Formats: sequence, C-alpha cells, structure tokens
Amino acid sequence: MSLHNDSIVIDGLIIAKWERSVFDDMRKGGLTAANCTVSVWEGFTDTVDNIAEMKQKIRDYSDILSLVRTTEDIRQAKRDGKTGIILGFQNAHAFEDNIGYIEAFADMGVRVVQLCYNTQNLIGTGCYERDGGLSGFGREVIAEMNRVGIMVDLSHVGSHTSKEAILESKKPVTYSHCLPSGLKEHPRNKSDEELKFIADHGGFIGVTMFPPFLKRGIEATVDDYVEAMDYIINLVGEDCVGFGTDFTQGYDKGFFDWITHDKGRYRRLTNFGTILNPEGIRTIGETPNLTVAMEKAGWGERKIQKVLGENWLRVFGEVWGA
Amino acid sequence: MSLHNDSIVIDGLIIAKWERSVFDDMRKGGLTAANCTVSVWEGFTDTVDNIAEMKQKIRDYSDILSLVRTTEDIRQAKRDGKTGIILGFQNAHAFEDNIGYIEAFADMGVRVVQLCYNTQNLIGTGCYERDGGLSGFGREVIAEMNRVGIMVDLSHVGSHTSKEAILESKKPVTYSHCLPSGLKEHPRNKSDEELKFIADHGGFIGVTMFPPFLKRGIEATVDDYVEAMDYIINLVGEDCVGFGTDFTQGYDKGFFDWITHDKGRYRRLTNFGTILNPEGIRTIGETPNLTVAMEKAGWGERKIQKVLGENWLRVFGEVWGA
Repeated sequence: MSLHNDSIVIDGLIIAKWERSVFDDMRKGGLTAANCTVSVWEGFTDTVDNIAEMKQKIRDYSDILSLVRTTEDIRQAKRDGKTGIILGFQNAHAFEDNIGYIEAFADMGVRVVQLCYNTQNLIGTGCYERDGGLSGFGREVIAEMNRVGIMVDLSHVGSHTSKEAILESKKPVTYSHCLPSGLKEHPRNKSDEELKFIADHGGFIGVTMFPPFLKRGIEATVDDYVEAMDYIINLVGEDCVGFGTDFTQGYDKGFFDWITHDKGRYRRLTNFGTILNPEGIRTIGETPNLTVAMEKAGWGERKIQKVLGENWLRVFGEVWGA
Repeated sequence: MSLHNDSIVIDGLIIAKWERSVFDDMRKGGLTAANCTVSVWEGFTDTVDNIAEMKQKIRDYSDILSLVRTTEDIRQAKRDGKTGIILGFQNAHAFEDNIGYIEAFADMGVRVVQLCYNTQNLIGTGCYERDGGLSGFGREVIAEMNRVGIMVDLSHVGSHTSKEAILESKKPVTYSHCLPSGLKEHPRNKSDEELKFIADHGGFIGVTMFPPFLKRGIEATVDDYVEAMDYIINLVGEDCVGFGTDFTQGYDKGFFDWITHDKGRYRRLTNFGTILNPEGIRTIGETPNLTVAMEKAGWGERKIQKVLGENWLRVFGEVWGA
C-alpha cells in the first residue's frame, strides 16, 4: 500500500457522475489526477455549462480537489493530498464548426479531447460505423489542438480516422481507454497492429477495464485487468502505457441509454448489458488493489510507478507544453 | 416569346443576393418559381434568421413575390403574375445534430435541402473532398426528410454519398444544378453513369450553367447551355430534366470567398476565377432567351415546357405531397 500512496496515480479516463461521493472515492483510491469527461454529445454552449458546473464543484470541494492546467498542477495535487481534475471531452462535437472554440476550451482548461464518439462528425468517424477517415476540417482541428496543447484522444474513433490522425498530429496522441482485440474482438478494441502503430508514432495507450470489452466480461477480476496491461506492454514496451479505467460510477440506465444512442437519442449503436467492473476494482476507491495486483503479477516498482501515472505525466507534459 | 410567357418556368437553384433588383429581374425573366438558397454554412439559428428575412422580403414585395409551400402555390403564382419563392438550403448543416429541426424547417416552408455542401458534415461528404459515404445519421435524416416532404438535393454531394442517398430515399432526389462530366471533367460535374443512376432510381436532374463547370467556361453562350441539357436528355430522357441556373446575381468577391472556403472561412476548396454567365443569359432577366435557344435547337413545344418547369412541378408534387 505504501507504493500506491507514494506514487503519482493518474486515471486516464473517468466518466463517473460528478458528485461528492465519487470525488471522495477518488481520494480513497489515491488518485493524484484523473481525466474527467465533461462533454460527449453536447454542443458548444452545453459543454461550457458542464465545464462551469465542474469548476463550481472543484471550488465547493476544494478540500479534496483542484483543477489541473499543467503537469505541475498534478504534482502539486500530490503534495496537497488532493485529486487533480483534468477536463476532457469524449467528442469534439463541442467544437462545432468553429476552430476558434478550440483555443477557447483550452483557455477554460480543457486538456484532452477525443476526436469522435462512436459515429461520424465533422472531423472523422467513430468506431461504431463505417469510417471514411479524417476530413480536411479534421486536419485543421488537429493542427489547432497541437498549437493550443489539447491532447488528441482516439479511443472511440474508427480505425481509418485514427490512423490518419496519428500521422497528422505533430504531438503525441492517445488511446486513453482501450483494450486489445488480441484478447477479445470488439469494435472498441484495438488490434496489435493498431497498438504498435500508435506507439511507433510516439503515441500513448491507456488501458481500460470496461467489462464489455474484457475477455472475461463481468467475470473478470483486477488480475485480468493487469493481464490486459501486460499484453499491451509486451507489444509496445512499458514507457507509453498507463491506465484509463472508464469508471461510470454513480450512473444509471438513463446514462447508458444516452451514451449508446447516436447523439444521445437516435439509433442504438450498441448494448452493453450489465456493467459490473472487475472484482477487486469495482469502484474508484479500490484503485489501490490495482497496485497490489501489479505486484502480485511480479511487476517491479519502476514499472508499476510508470504505468500508474508517471508515463501519463510525461506525455501530458509533452502535449500541454507545461 | 409567347411560349415562354405561357409556360410554367421554374429555376431549380438560384443563390442570388436577395434584394429588390434581383426579384424584379425574376419577373422580367418570367420565372414562375425558383428554389432560393437561404442556408449554406449557417447553423440552425442563423438559418432561421435567413428564413425570417426572406419572408419579410416576400411580404415587402408581395406585388411580385409569394411564398411556395405547395405546387398549387406555384400554379397560383403563375396565375397572379408573381414569382413563387421556394425556400431551399445548399447544406443540411443547419439541421445540426437534431432531427427535430427537420420538421421545424418544413413547417417554416423549406422544401429542398442539399445534404452536404462541398465537405464532410454529420450526414455525408461533399464533392470537394474524399467521400466515405452516407452516415447512419444521414440515413435517419433522409427518412425524416421523406416523411416531412423536403426534397433531397445532391448537387454538391460526393459521388459515394450521392449513390447511397439515392438508394436510401423513398422519394425522388435531385441533382438540382449540375453539368455532365462528359462535356467537362470537374469535381462538381456528374458522370454519365451517375446521371443515369439517379434517373433510373426515379430522381431528377436540374442543369446548371455555372461557367466554371461549362465546357467553354466564360466563352459559353446560352446555346452551350441548351447543348448541355440535350446531352443529359439524350442519356435519361426528357421527363426528369429541368434547369437550375445557379445564378449568383448581385454578389461580390466576399461572397465567393465565403462559399469557396470550408465553413465559409477555413481552407480554400476551389477557386472559380471570373464568373461570367453564358452570353444571352448573363442575368436572370434574360431567361426568356433560354426558350428562344431551345426553339433554335429544334426542340418541340412539349419538350420545352417540360424542361422549363413542368417536370420540376411534377417531381415537387411527388416529394412534397401537395
């Protein structure tokens, strides 16, 4: 447990219900920082609302939370015993048709944005429909994200758009929360070739444990999660891998209906069935068990600390420029 | 001249500057009705503004204009010696991510909407970039346009998206303003195969005379325009062809800069150079010369009346349901 407590622990993707109990659980789980989703299907105005609400919560719960704008803010959160909130989107839909909104969001503190969420937008196409690749506008969007220091996330992006985005970006991009299709075939999982391609181009991989994408589904344990991490580390090495749980803590069926329908309300794209996170890490508060499982798997201290957070910290610094 | 005066004359696409002088010229040209563009790059709110402005003009100039909601409104305009204004979009961007907006626009009187303008949107992709085809959302949009009676226009839509939209729509779709690539290769022109495909599936073709797409460019005359019509009629017959000039009367360089850049302001998609309409039909007011040129080309009265407007009138009735 002291290794977990002594480490920088960064969750590369959480989309939980943003309420005090979840933030308390982040502290219990020893999270130094987390990329917290504040936009999925929303347009510009609703996303600004979401950001304002999240910032109000950070102020209200300033005893345990802080806003992350730089990697130094993450280090400071560690020193203060707080959890740093990194503002992230799972869809660039909120950019609408306006490249000027990208810098505006960066000014507001947004640091990670996934280009597409499951379906087609102005930039490219998500992983739940046929993907024609990155649009011309998408190339302009990536250039601007590079300029203002917002990390390009490709987890839910289609294979064709992802490949072209990896080639287009001048800064590291990420699959912030993914699993290998080598362990289970699924539209959301990434092939060995895709995992190697992003790593070979300086990109980063955060490993998720979202049960529908895990080999053993809701039968999985935290050890299966570590196995999936090792699968990816065996492919790409231990320096460009972190974790990104995709915790949905606090949400009910209405939320899952919203995220599994195009634009939150049109055709159904997938049906996850029961969501039950792996035994041992069912809740954010159990994150220390991840470190225990890593030790049990025979990981050394350096490898554990890199995958727990130091790798994320380094790549964030490369993209954010601070 | 009496044939022109006795005929229903429908211009399938005009994007002129909406001011009194242009409307006066429509009367001089003997237009019974015209599909008048009120949205290109605008989102929902700005498009509603444009519609309100156009309706105010129709009220202000009610001595010569009327709003078209049904084909009977077109017949009434003919009887009244007015020009019926059909509200049309050249981009479904104004639908944003909201299928509910489609019926709202139909309620406002919108009767023709092009799915994409030159580049990718949520529905599909335009003809000036690589085209991955119709999206899942695009299929839902077409179903709703069919339901509420808005005609699907594909003139500026890419080849792949167009083909899939033609197959998807339950009602006739149109290339409202196009030219054959058999006469000149251009990203905006349609191949013989494409022209036959839309016709074979019950669709409609409006022939444009926009000089950059014409074989002889700014050297062309109204006779070249009629030649292009005959080229298409020879392919698909005379019952599914009309005209759609693409008149840009009254606009200056700022307008062309706006339409030739993605979203009105990003990367340049094309450069038209000098815009000078064919000799004999440089202005809307010269439209009667089109009828003269048709007669000179040896067209019979029935063929002339069909292509001048009766074909459009029939297909509009099929799509609008009234």
